[in-house]
Amino acid sequence: MNIGIGVIGAGVMGADHVRIIAQEVARARVVAVCDQDLARAQSAATIAHGARAVTDPLALIADKDVQAVVIASPDATHADYALACIAAGKPVLCEKPLAPTSAECATIIAAEQALGRRLIQVGYMRRFDPGYTDMRRRFAEGDLGGALLLHCIHRNAVAPAWFSALMAITNALVHEIDITRWLLGGEIASIQILRGRATRSSAAADPLLAIMQMESGQVVDVEVFMNAGYGYDVRAELVCEKGTLTMAPPVHAELRHNGSQSFSFAQDWRPRFAAAYRRQMQAFVDSLETQQGMGASAWDGFVATAVAEAGVQAFEIRTPVKIELPPIPRLYSA
Amino acid sequence: MNIGIGVIGAGVMGADHVRIIAQEVARARVVAVCDQDLARAQSAATIAHGARAVTDPLALIADKDVQAVVIASPDATHADYALACIAAGKPVLCEKPLAPTSAECATIIAAEQALGRRLIQVGYMRRFDPGYTDMRRRFAEGDLGGALLLHCIHRNAVAPAWFSALMAITNALVHEIDITRWLLGGEIASIQILRGRATRSSAAADPLLAIMQMESGQVVDVEVFMNAGYGYDVRAELVCEKGTLTMAPPVHAELRHNGSQSFSFAQDWRPRFAAAYRRQMQAFVDSLETQQGMGASAWDGFVATAVAEAGVQAFEIRTPVKIELPPIPRLYSA
Amino acid sequence: MNIGIGVIGAGVMGADHVRIIAQEVARARVVAVCDQDLARAQSAATIAHGARAVTDPLALIADKDVQAVVIASPDATHADYALACIAAGKPVLCEKPLAPTSAECATIIAAEQALGRRLIQVGYMRRFDPGYTDMRRRFAEGDLGGALLLHCIHRNAVAPAWFSALMAITNALVHEIDITRWLLGGEIASIQILRGRATRSSAAADPLLAIMQMESGQVVDVEVFMNAGYGYDVRAELVCEKGTLTMAPPVHAELRHNGSQSFSFAQDWRPRFAAAYRRQMQAFVDSLETQQGMGASAWDGFVATAVAEAGVQAFEIRTPVKIELPPIPRLYSA
Amino acid sequence: MNIGIGVIGAGVMGADHVRIIAQEVARARVVAVCDQDLARAQSAATIAHGARAVTDPLALIADKDVQAVVIASPDATHADYALACIAAGKPVLCEKPLAPTSAECATIIAAEQALGRRLIQVGYMRRFDPGYTDMRRRFAEGDLGGALLLHCIHRNAVAPAWFSALMAITNALVHEIDITRWLLGGEIASIQILRGRATRSSAAADPLLAIMQMESGQVVDVEVFMNAGYGYDVRAELVCEKGTLTMAPPVHAELRHNGSQSFSFAQDWRPRFAAAYRRQMQAFVDSLETQQGMGASAWDGFVATAVAEAGVQAFEIRTPVKIELPPIPRLYSA
Repeated sequence: MNIGIGVIGAGVMGADHVRIIAQEVARARVVAVCDQDLARAQSAATIAHGARAVTDPLALIADKDVQAVVIASPDATHADYALACIAAGKPVLCEKPLAPTSAECATIIAAEQALGRRLIQVGYMRRFDPGYTDMRRRFAEGDLGGALLLHCIHRNAVAPAWFSALMAITNALVHEIDITRWLLGGEIASIQILRGRATRSSAAADPLLAIMQMESGQVVDVEVFMNAGYGYDVRAELVCEKGTLTMAPPVHAELRHNGSQSFSFAQDWRPRFAAAYRRQMQAFVDSLETQQGMGASAWDGFVATAVAEAGVQAFEIRTPVKIELPPIPRLYSA
Repeated sequence: MNIGIGVIGAGVMGADHVRIIAQEVARARVVAVCDQDLARAQSAATIAHGARAVTDPLALIADKDVQAVVIASPDATHADYALACIAAGKPVLCEKPLAPTSAECATIIAAEQALGRRLIQVGYMRRFDPGYTDMRRRFAEGDLGGALLLHCIHRNAVAPAWFSALMAITNALVHEIDITRWLLGGEIASIQILRGRATRSSAAADPLLAIMQMESGQVVDVEVFMNAGYGYDVRAELVCEKGTLTMAPPVHAELRHNGSQSFSFAQDWRPRFAAAYRRQMQAFVDSLETQQGMGASAWDGFVATAVAEAGVQAFEIRTPVKIELPPIPRLYSA
Repeated sequence: MNIGIGVIGAGVMGADHVRIIAQEVARARVVAVCDQDLARAQSAATIAHGARAVTDPLALIADKDVQAVVIASPDATHADYALACIAAGKPVLCEKPLAPTSAECATIIAAEQALGRRLIQVGYMRRFDPGYTDMRRRFAEGDLGGALLLHCIHRNAVAPAWFSALMAITNALVHEIDITRWLLGGEIASIQILRGRATRSSAAADPLLAIMQMESGQVVDVEVFMNAGYGYDVRAELVCEKGTLTMAPPVHAELRHNGSQSFSFAQDWRPRFAAAYRRQMQAFVDSLETQQGMGASAWDGFVATAVAEAGVQAFEIRTPVKIELPPIPRLYSA
Repeated sequence: MNIGIGVIGAGVMGADHVRIIAQEVARARVVAVCDQDLARAQSAATIAHGARAVTDPLALIADKDVQAVVIASPDATHADYALACIAAGKPVLCEKPLAPTSAECATIIAAEQALGRRLIQVGYMRRFDPGYTDMRRRFAEGDLGGALLLHCIHRNAVAPAWFSALMAITNALVHEIDITRWLLGGEIASIQILRGRATRSSAAADPLLAIMQMESGQVVDVEVFMNAGYGYDVRAELVCEKGTLTMAPPVHAELRHNGSQSFSFAQDWRPRFAAAYRRQMQAFVDSLETQQGMGASAWDGFVATAVAEAGVQAFEIRTPVKIELPPIPRLYSA
């Protein structure tokens, strides 16, 4: 029988999750969609025939037909709903970030520890992208030797006018913070944010160059450019002792026209990471049966937020900031 | 509620379809798997928890829990099972070819016409591949002008020793026969098969170069090379009046190692067309609700087999063969 | 001391050869430029300081400062000037074709045989292109096994209005005729020209698909499209028993802009084959010292014209034409 | 008449320059080759028929047949020979670096200023590489907006055992120091060198990540990896306000073999930059006639060495170092 899922938040991401579950994922169905704006909830629920539209997230969590919860509501609400789900013993896929502050994330970790098991997965979907998973799998074969450097590029076509340099760190760079830890299998020791010459198309200090150094020494550089203009473009090259791995942009057809050969970029992250979102949701559903989650844990969500906080500080004081993490709890180190 | 699907045939392709439905497709479930070899049916059924393993295909078709049927048994059995499904009023996704002879295919068309509606889709899965669909979508934008030429390459790494030149036409080239009609939106008027210098790694006349000419004049050339050695590789370039579209091979990560930069080929068609198979099955399931199928119809299946028959003749007599098709029945022309 | 070269013809190609010798080639200098239009000869001579501008080609050939001759005059004059050079014992680099008819080419071969040595090289410059030479060198390593197929594409952006389908064969396809023989190391046994749907941007039957079969069985297909619109684009893939070699288009920088990643095509053959033209001329100059020419011989020039003639016939009668060549004279078989 | 060139130094680079002049450059000839090791000088002179082999560089400079000098002797000797050439009024193409210390470079600048004209060009050959020149030309078209970031990669396959991290800065990174100034058209304000996890295949701190900031704010990052293992690989991406330009590796043919599609890297800088070396030498010869040099001036040579010196300091003190340059002399600012 299909697993009943409740989705909290029917904005762009929430509605997308509803559509993905209803149209692309096996053995699951959306039973309820919650949004403060009932019309919006109804609109999303329509995609999933038979789903209820509701406005009370806590009622949704308590609903006995809801066996698992997707949290896609505003960031500030994540912690409360995650804690309610833990209290109800219901598994969660929570959109990133787990919470806007590491302190809030810590309360979730504490709740899971008190419960004695993990219920939370955080939607760092790049862990399911074929580009990143191929890099990681090939790297794990071992013949390339140790990883030495990671070069990353994170470009959006256009950011909203209200998007600040700090948001470039907490909302965009945070993806590379997570994927770096996942690819390199270690913790970030320090972070530095360099401001360069800023584009005239934004009021923010944009682009930024983030430099992270891992505890085991590797250097990671990340260009974060929120108004790159030409398209949504995410790149990575992992430099190892005997070779490198470069993530290829997804290209299905190449056009020769008007004097050039070209392929198109996605204009935002949803088409670019469509496979990742689908695979993430399927893995979440699978994990409800196998009890083995592949996604980012609450601990991963905590660390990503903590490193992003250090990044914000590094941006402001313009020098490298050392990352101080508590020891990883036993629940997450297994 | 999930649609109950019965799968006939638990060989490589049948088992793959069971896995796809069970693990990657929304709103469907496998209720029964049929194979003459019960152990094989059981093995496949295990992938889909709760599916029954049976040995009688007609009983499976009659099973009231079976709302739709996937036919993946040996080619020679396709027509009988397809006709039984039509008699039972159950929708079918039939692996290609629809049947080994155009005469058998014609009986299926006749049965659908007698019924007055279409129940059969043929598994020419390339119609769902992101490469081909991107080419078709971009071409349909119209600014490239009319299509003039289509260059195709169809390479397998290694074919079984019993794979003959005729099978290269009926089993491999038949994919390009279908995709050509779908991409160019017209019928094939003639086919010619050129034998060149043959590889020493096969006893067959391998590779072949097929030349097809469309009723509207376009020339299509297809290299079919069943023992290309290096990997499974399918290419296409559509040449239009003002530009061309080239299908890009799927690449997720590029390796720089040992003096070169490289990406890997899939070793057979299943990983290469994994997205196509998944999307095809989802579209089949969706079509059961919407009554609008996107896949190849029985007519398309008939034409593909008929053109392949002409190709076999063209191979033998070593001159071009004109394709003679009956008028398209009204049921399929809408 | 620099070798003194006389250039006959100061049109686009002739002026280019003058420029190449004067600016890019070691150990040579242009001493005289000849054109019926004295002003044009003077304009080209200006590029090479100190070169004389003349209007009498035979006087140029007789000039004692002229140690070697480049023939870049209209095709119909090639044979006369080549014969005059042979009579004068002076080495020649003759623009392709050697002559418009194989009969004329045969007189040149006869003259060289009478002389007992080879003085003529024909400007099939692709033999010096890094793409083709890399393919040939890599193929010669042997581990790819025998060559089985060759796929070629020859596209011009726009052809002049007076460019006919026959010219597409004699002026454009003739390049592939030569390069095919050079890459595969054998003779062409037959040629067939397929007309497809023609572009509306030309009055000619454009594009064409030429199919050649080698004496050793390999099949070669060549798309010739003189009004491809988007740019000048020449491609080739050599299919061998254990792998293939694809010529890459020359790309120096890739642009990400306006929603896509792209690189530019040259708009005609001169920038595309700039390296080939330079290397061809240097090799010609080097051969004057070493007496070892790498370029196409008069025999190669004869065969290219003879196969193109068969191509013209094949176009007209719409069936394959068998190529009948005389035995290769001993002078050219060493 | 050909310009007579004397080459000082007949090691790998010197012999290469002799070969390039003798075989690939118009209007020049090598008249003398100097090396302390006479046999080595003779060996190089043999490539250029008629060139004298000598052991006294000052005699070579004084030789009246020597109209221009190429300095390719050990770095420590560059300044002395350059000064002698200036004293003799002879134009020079000096291999990079102009001199190992900025103080020595300053004496050369002073000598040119005293003379009142520029005679020195420094062999930063990348300024003539088609990849970099294409990027610069395309950027100069202006529609991409201002330059914001420059990402560079500089990888050698294997460095000699005696190659230290400091040499990675003074001998390798110095190329990016020069090309950055040339591409961005501004001066470098500061430099920082990050050591990461070092490869086990070298005793040096290898790779390094250099971060430079331009006076106009742009951030430049450079990976310098002297033992990258897989090949010689130089990359660059210029990030502008409305798009980016990426230098493509030179690829002539792509191989499909053994399960992958690949192209080969050069194993060192000479094949990779063969076109750049040839074009640089031709431009040097051309400049002797036009008095307009395109190459790096003595001032550029001074700045490159000065920034590399700051880089060495930055490596040692592990913090960013501010670059302090004297005002550019009028002789170089025109």
